[in-house]
Amino acid sequence: MLTLTAMLARTMRLYGERPAIIDTEGQFTWSEFTNRIARCAALLSNRGITPGNRFGILSRNSFRQAELMHAGYWLGAIPVPVNYRLAAAEIKAIFQDADCQLVAVEEFFFSFVADDCLSHLSDQIVWIPSGGKQKSDCQYEDELQATEPLPLREASEDDDALLLYTGGTTGQSKGVRLSHRNIIANAFQLSFLVRPHHSDIYLHIPPMFHSADLLGTTHTIAGGAHAYLPQFTPEAALTTIESVRATHAMLTPTMIIMTLQDAALGRTDLSSFRQLLYGSSPMAAEWIKKALDAFGDVEIIQAYGLTETSPILTILPMAEHEQAMAGENAALLQSVGRPIPGVEMRIVDDHDTDVPIDAAGEIIVRGANVSKGYLNRPDETRIGFRKGWLHTGDIGRMNEQGYLFLLDRKKDMIITGGENVYSSEVEACLYQHPGVHECAVVGVPDDTYGEALLAVVVTTPGAVLTDTILIGHCRDRIGGYKIPRRYRFVDELPKSAMNKILKNELRRMVSTGGCAGPEA
Amino acid sequence: MLTLTAMLARTMRLYGERPAIIDTEGQFTWSEFTNRIARCAALLSNRGITPGNRFGILSRNSFRQAELMHAGYWLGAIPVPVNYRLAAAEIKAIFQDADCQLVAVEEFFFSFVADDCLSHLSDQIVWIPSGGKQKSDCQYEDELQATEPLPLREASEDDDALLLYTGGTTGQSKGVRLSHRNIIANAFQLSFLVRPHHSDIYLHIPPMFHSADLLGTTHTIAGGAHAYLPQFTPEAALTTIESVRATHAMLTPTMIIMTLQDAALGRTDLSSFRQLLYGSSPMAAEWIKKALDAFGDVEIIQAYGLTETSPILTILPMAEHEQAMAGENAALLQSVGRPIPGVEMRIVDDHDTDVPIDAAGEIIVRGANVSKGYLNRPDETRIGFRKGWLHTGDIGRMNEQGYLFLLDRKKDMIITGGENVYSSEVEACLYQHPGVHECAVVGVPDDTYGEALLAVVVTTPGAVLTDTILIGHCRDRIGGYKIPRRYRFVDELPKSAMNKILKNELRRMVSTGGCAGPEA
Repeated sequence: MLTLTAMLARTMRLYGERPAIIDTEGQFTWSEFTNRIARCAALLSNRGITPGNRFGILSRNSFRQAELMHAGYWLGAIPVPVNYRLAAAEIKAIFQDADCQLVAVEEFFFSFVADDCLSHLSDQIVWIPSGGKQKSDCQYEDELQATEPLPLREASEDDDALLLYTGGTTGQSKGVRLSHRNIIANAFQLSFLVRPHHSDIYLHIPPMFHSADLLGTTHTIAGGAHAYLPQFTPEAALTTIESVRATHAMLTPTMIIMTLQDAALGRTDLSSFRQLLYGSSPMAAEWIKKALDAFGDVEIIQAYGLTETSPILTILPMAEHEQAMAGENAALLQSVGRPIPGVEMRIVDDHDTDVPIDAAGEIIVRGANVSKGYLNRPDETRIGFRKGWLHTGDIGRMNEQGYLFLLDRKKDMIITGGENVYSSEVEACLYQHPGVHECAVVGVPDDTYGEALLAVVVTTPGAVLTDTILIGHCRDRIGGYKIPRRYRFVDELPKSAMNKILKNELRRMVSTGGCAGPEA
Repeated sequence: MLTLTAMLARTMRLYGERPAIIDTEGQFTWSEFTNRIARCAALLSNRGITPGNRFGILSRNSFRQAELMHAGYWLGAIPVPVNYRLAAAEIKAIFQDADCQLVAVEEFFFSFVADDCLSHLSDQIVWIPSGGKQKSDCQYEDELQATEPLPLREASEDDDALLLYTGGTTGQSKGVRLSHRNIIANAFQLSFLVRPHHSDIYLHIPPMFHSADLLGTTHTIAGGAHAYLPQFTPEAALTTIESVRATHAMLTPTMIIMTLQDAALGRTDLSSFRQLLYGSSPMAAEWIKKALDAFGDVEIIQAYGLTETSPILTILPMAEHEQAMAGENAALLQSVGRPIPGVEMRIVDDHDTDVPIDAAGEIIVRGANVSKGYLNRPDETRIGFRKGWLHTGDIGRMNEQGYLFLLDRKKDMIITGGENVYSSEVEACLYQHPGVHECAVVGVPDDTYGEALLAVVVTTPGAVLTDTILIGHCRDRIGGYKIPRRYRFVDELPKSAMNKILKNELRRMVSTGGCAGPEA
């Protein structure tokens, strides 16, 4: 069966003596780790969690978070790992929406209990030690050792396995229901390109409440090991790759660029590192070159996906990166790649009719990795998954060879004087100015044009920018109707946990005047 | 969707300009081949084939056979490729059981039409050219070019895709229904171990009416190419690997041994060859060593499977072969490997209760690659697939690390004086005698013991064997109750298309006295 529990049972049986977890607290084999999982399942069960229940997790990355998630699968309960950077009220809303019967909280987040967000669950908290050298009177380990392992409850492929909240960049958070089959399907689909092996050591760098964390599943199937970085800093990423001898990891372009500029880079042994996956946005050729120089014999792969797709949809393999850098087809680096096996993808207009090759339209997809919908949101599920296809809300175009180019979020596209403007294209133009450190372009109401373009810009330290300079810069590069006439210069932009700029938040700030800095 | 049609559509889109078929008649790209498939679907449709219909194929291996099968998937009809070595009456029975509306026949089999087996379908035959230099007035190619490509009909995952007849070794032929999802699931499962790539060239050596042919699917998903060997001879296999620059192939141990002894071996360039899969039975260490020497830098993998499992269940990877040959764990070569991802396997007694580790029992399995059952055989389907598990009828044992050792077909196990004897163990003992070229051990009725052991032996040319010699040989090697007391020396043993000894046939010959050679 394509279930996370069948996968774990097989990996334990076949790779029982091989490492599952490599951590500062020690190394666990798959036999040992599975035993911990079965005890953790008993612990949850003793607290009243039954099959079909949901329970929250509030934790930085750790093997204990992985253990809790597996323990949920083991007993048939659904883990809900939550973004701890959200506001207390948002976290509370998620736990209530998901009807969580219990929350496992890393003691690092002790202050949250006093906050409103956990008070309603205060007698249903399982404290998880933060590990490392931190002093702790947490009872978790004692309790774990005191329980008897719970027998595995067999899951069905279509059972919900995991609930992940998404939507931070576009609106109110929605709980995405991912079934066992969804997650395992994507791990199988990825295997064609990731080519996992039992000698792999996957380092979990992005936060585990994000769907990108599911990338580790394909390595579990192959019998590989896992290591966890509690929180990303460039230095911590580098030293952990060295200390655990990590072979695979996923980073965002921002993380990669920060890491390549870090002083620790030169003194770190990265010889174990074999495959670097990046996603969320494309990366410029010069940074890919630098990454290849710095990381040695590493394969670089770009991926595009969504929480709703468990998560990967397209992959741009190493060969295309090499081709682009050899100058053969430089535009390929702007592509997020091609659909992985088992993913069907179409580009359609507002009537769900396919657009011609190379034309822009909404990306819609289907496949075994596509979620069956959102929790408690029948309307959004019906609309978002209409006619059997997930409507991603992303605007893209696909060329003759099947390479996908992302243009914009549908909601971020600006319609000005009847013309469609993709903010990503305008931003790419602004980024070419050395004085632009970061920027985002949004539409604001305009009496004449319906919408007008407003650019919010963070200036490179030391640089001096004005609206006149940037308008002049754009003039030779993009069509007149795409040039922003309004600018705001700010100190920073609101961002998600994956370093995506939160345009909804930005629009809200702009409209309420809450965006620091004068409008030019 | 996990369908063969969605797979083909994706491969055409992504790898359209890459080779799909490498043949003496030319090379077709995936675009060209898909165009042929769509025309072939139109040709079938013009002959009255509609979605849900079944049609027979009687052909040696060729790209046209592949084209016909894909054309079936394309229009929603189910191909039934049939073993052309069966007797005419058996072939006729299969076409009738499957209710075939049409049969595509390679002109090589012209004489079959006159025979009884096709007469009832004589106005529903599509003749397929044999290709090569053979003269032909066959209209197939002209007809193909004259049709308009049929639009793709979308399949559902659970639709029947292919009907393969099996059971040659154990009784009357049964039609195994394989769905789109079954076949694609196995291709995904295999990808973890085969690691396919678009540069692969898969040479189809075993006959395409056998489930082993489905091994090529994983390469199609990756965008690789295919080449076809019409009929196996050692020399043809070698020269075709050289001429098409094949990278992957599946051979039976018998085929490998014949090839390693062939004079053409020394003068053939096999440098393209990267992965050799073998199955049906284990292979002795000395032959594996010889294969590695002869084939150069080739990865050798053993596989075990059934038609009902689309087909692979277990894999013994290269690393285990190397380990065994380095003397670390020589017994591993006797194992057929461990379950691939997504296959659940148990060893059970007659009450479907799990037996202890290392104990013998029936192998039962489930997974997305497992067929939903047999055509027109509700009773055998209900019994064979009871409680959601396919009962393979194979007796095996599994060790602590999950390695499976095949002992016998359940029907071939002999119960003598209350003791279970696995014929494979007795045969392995007999094979250790240099005078034994081939042998098979079956049970025959016995008044005292219920069953007694009878060995049927083909003597090595030049050797002289008697029952006394072989009983003496066995005495030091296996327990007394396992030693055959009755022998027959024959010139050859009845075999299936995959070179498996047909024990049912042998038992029938023995009981009717039809087995040549005196009973010793």
